[in-house]
Amino acid sequence: MAKYAIGVDYGTESGRAVLVDVANGRELATAVHKYANGVIDRVIPGTKVKLDPDFALQDPNDYLAVLRVTIPAVLRAARVKPGDVIGIGTDFTACTMMPVDADGTPFCMIPKWRSRPHAWVKLWKHHAAQHEADKLNDMARRRNEGWLKRYGGKISSEWMLPKIMQILDEDPEIYKAASKFIEAADWIVMQMTGEEARNSCTAGYKAIWHKKDGYPGKAFFKALDPRLENVVDEKLSRDIRPLGQKAGEITARAAKLTGLKEGTAVSVGNVDAHVSVPAAGITDAGKMLMIMGTSICHMVMGTREKIVPGMCGVVEDGILPGFQGYEAGQSCVGDHFAWFTKNCVPEAYEKEARRRGVSIHDLLVDKASKLEVGESGLVALDWWNGNRSILVDVDLTGMLLGATLLTRPEEIYRALIEATAYGTYIIIENFEKYGVPVNELYACGGLPERNEFLMQIYSDVTGRSIKIARSSQAPAVGSAMFGAVAAGARRGGYATIFDAAKRMGGVKDRVFRPRAK
Amino acid sequence: MAKYAIGVDYGTESGRAVLVDVANGRELATAVHKYANGVIDRVIPGTKVKLDPDFALQDPNDYLAVLRVTIPAVLRAARVKPGDVIGIGTDFTACTMMPVDADGTPFCMIPKWRSRPHAWVKLWKHHAAQHEADKLNDMARRRNEGWLKRYGGKISSEWMLPKIMQILDEDPEIYKAASKFIEAADWIVMQMTGEEARNSCTAGYKAIWHKKDGYPGKAFFKALDPRLENVVDEKLSRDIRPLGQKAGEITARAAKLTGLKEGTAVSVGNVDAHVSVPAAGITDAGKMLMIMGTSICHMVMGTREKIVPGMCGVVEDGILPGFQGYEAGQSCVGDHFAWFTKNCVPEAYEKEARRRGVSIHDLLVDKASKLEVGESGLVALDWWNGNRSILVDVDLTGMLLGATLLTRPEEIYRALIEATAYGTYIIIENFEKYGVPVNELYACGGLPERNEFLMQIYSDVTGRSIKIARSSQAPAVGSAMFGAVAAGARRGGYATIFDAAKRMGGVKDRVFRPRAK
Repeated sequence: MAKYAIGVDYGTESGRAVLVDVANGRELATAVHKYANGVIDRVIPGTKVKLDPDFALQDPNDYLAVLRVTIPAVLRAARVKPGDVIGIGTDFTACTMMPVDADGTPFCMIPKWRSRPHAWVKLWKHHAAQHEADKLNDMARRRNEGWLKRYGGKISSEWMLPKIMQILDEDPEIYKAASKFIEAADWIVMQMTGEEARNSCTAGYKAIWHKKDGYPGKAFFKALDPRLENVVDEKLSRDIRPLGQKAGEITARAAKLTGLKEGTAVSVGNVDAHVSVPAAGITDAGKMLMIMGTSICHMVMGTREKIVPGMCGVVEDGILPGFQGYEAGQSCVGDHFAWFTKNCVPEAYEKEARRRGVSIHDLLVDKASKLEVGESGLVALDWWNGNRSILVDVDLTGMLLGATLLTRPEEIYRALIEATAYGTYIIIENFEKYGVPVNELYACGGLPERNEFLMQIYSDVTGRSIKIARSSQAPAVGSAMFGAVAAGARRGGYATIFDAAKRMGGVKDRVFRPRAK
Repeated sequence: MAKYAIGVDYGTESGRAVLVDVANGRELATAVHKYANGVIDRVIPGTKVKLDPDFALQDPNDYLAVLRVTIPAVLRAARVKPGDVIGIGTDFTACTMMPVDADGTPFCMIPKWRSRPHAWVKLWKHHAAQHEADKLNDMARRRNEGWLKRYGGKISSEWMLPKIMQILDEDPEIYKAASKFIEAADWIVMQMTGEEARNSCTAGYKAIWHKKDGYPGKAFFKALDPRLENVVDEKLSRDIRPLGQKAGEITARAAKLTGLKEGTAVSVGNVDAHVSVPAAGITDAGKMLMIMGTSICHMVMGTREKIVPGMCGVVEDGILPGFQGYEAGQSCVGDHFAWFTKNCVPEAYEKEARRRGVSIHDLLVDKASKLEVGESGLVALDWWNGNRSILVDVDLTGMLLGATLLTRPEEIYRALIEATAYGTYIIIENFEKYGVPVNELYACGGLPERNEFLMQIYSDVTGRSIKIARSSQAPAVGSAMFGAVAAGARRGGYATIFDAAKRMGGVKDRVFRPRAK
């Protein structure tokens, strides 16, 4: 009798469930649910409270709605009985965090706090805590904190501690009243199992936790702000669970919400980028996976801990057990092209696209692909949304250089693609310079399948072949794989993620190879 | 009995005649004729000969067509008898030049030469002689030529000598066969009077001629290229006529072409920017006129010869007799906004403009005017068409810095306007730094009347009030004034251009005043 696992991938705008055959990774059904409140960046829903610039919040009710809608949908579509689903795994954007009370209720669900911005989920791309990040980095540098270099020398404003510090600075009542600050990745697991199980991936990459050294010390936090001295014990957790562990089982309440059977295995939470690595069949060092969508995450494993300036982080067992997991990233890729087509493409091009029956992206690709390399003379820097690696500065802004009166839209479009490709090249070069080999490239996400022209430029610019993950929904499939591992071999799953990756992961036949220029 | 003068202004795309009452400058009729061959930058008309990039040619038949079409048109429209027109003046883009044979026939009108690019008129914005300009500047610097500093330390590739050098380099047969190289400004006068009368304005600003020192010496030309040793005597002219002089009178042949009476006075040729100064009523030092269209020319007079790095030139009597005439310029202003609206404005904006019944420029102005100063964080450099002053480098290209995912089209549009305004500010600051006061600003041309928002930004950025020339066709009116001066006081005109400016020139009531920021 076939066994199945479900993976749920929580993205920026929606959540997606996929139901997978445990034996071979075949995807039987997919369902997507768009968050009703999406990215909240202007006004708190149901109020007139305006948000400051750079705020990006979310509503945790939207996360529950994803479970309620998509899981019954995939069960129905695949005609699979809940009893044949042996495990479920989830992955999330990160650091996406919120204050909760003692029983795990998010503050924004409590009427008393609801109208206050800091009661809500801070989405990964909430960029309003730069001031706090600067302060934290400054103090860490002055105190020569050893952990700083494991994060490329800079803690991002997107991460857990700057976000907590911003709450303390701007709404100390909420800081004080909050029982915990929790990653959305862990909160959603808690909604399924009834108990908290903090995952090592977000703790390591986003909250400065280290397998051997733990968190930064009390003295550091005290120096930063006396009120923060005991932040770890008061507001976080030292009980960190490695990836691949079982977090618990579906409770009666969660069974009612999802339609799954009570007792179904649930894996500890994970991050969308990290969970995609085994989905692409990657199980060893030197193979970099680019998760390409609105932004790019670059994941590569190594055998030793190396210090790489400007990377996002290195975490032992942070991607797969037994390896050092390295992460870097670019914060503006798909977003970049979406901005361009929305703001900078003239009406004549829209008309031409309609006449030819193609999308505006396809039209631009068609025109841009006819240009010679360097023909336009344009050079761009892809900092439209700051720079994550290797400069780690969200305040950087984009540049276009070399425009003339003959410059055409497709030339700008191509220059933006090249800018993002060179952004990736700089990241690879930097890893290799500091002792982390990058021998092969893999890609997954929306862009690689939609835009072959872009993938070819990436291959040309990086001088490396690029393989594409077999699944177009790699994070959800990766999560399902971890669900199968949580269930374990005895219940029809796998003993380790390596076993699962061999059977359930892999790449497509099409490989992009670099052309000599 | 009222007397009239006609001014003909030769622009980049068309020629325009205006018929003016000599007593008060009132404009009675205007006619415009678009050049049939326009700017020739791809293929030589009637052939399959492709042009190299940066070529910009014209057809002198188009210049004759302007006389043939527009002069009868204004006479008819104003119901003025040819006998009551006492004089005609003309102005031209510059340096716009061509090779001619002994009787003044342009080489491109001669079948033998017609299919060769260098036989045609090189328009002012022909930018293919940069290599030659570099060579000339390099040699002048090495030999410490004194005249170089009168041109801001650099001779532009747009000017006469680099254009001649390019012909010599690329088509030496044409160089050898040409009887003369002549400014279009002087050629058109020759078509009316039957004789050559080279004007001091183009000779001074564009051909390195100086009232006291003449042209550069033979030794310099020889050092540049032995074949150029006698270029002045062989291919140019040392007989230079000051502005305001009479060049001659309408010949029988020209009377037939234009409908004017034989014997009507014709003034020596002039340049569109320079001729506009008296049209704005400017007759003394310290008042800078900005001629604002596709590009900006900045004209200001001083009482002494000062050396100003990066200016286009200083020529004694080059604007009005008795003053040092200073010129500077920006090569991309109206062109900049035209490029932007053509290439970068999304369809949604075009639709909104149509719905509101306004032009796309007006829509962008409306949106941009609601932005706070500096709100967008964008900074641009207006080098989309190179930089004329104060860097004098046509190979420079444009830059936009500070773009984010929230950047909107109107923000870019405003940044481009600000970039051009700061371009002007840099030019003013540079003049004052080197001893040429700029106390007041005047403007003429298409932009000041179409775009009050832009004029206000120029006033704010420069910190100076801006007055607008009364006539919306200042060059043509200025040319008519010179026509009235060529006729002289005895025939019902004026003895000097100062007298003419007092009666026929002036500004509008509306003045833009700088706002504190």
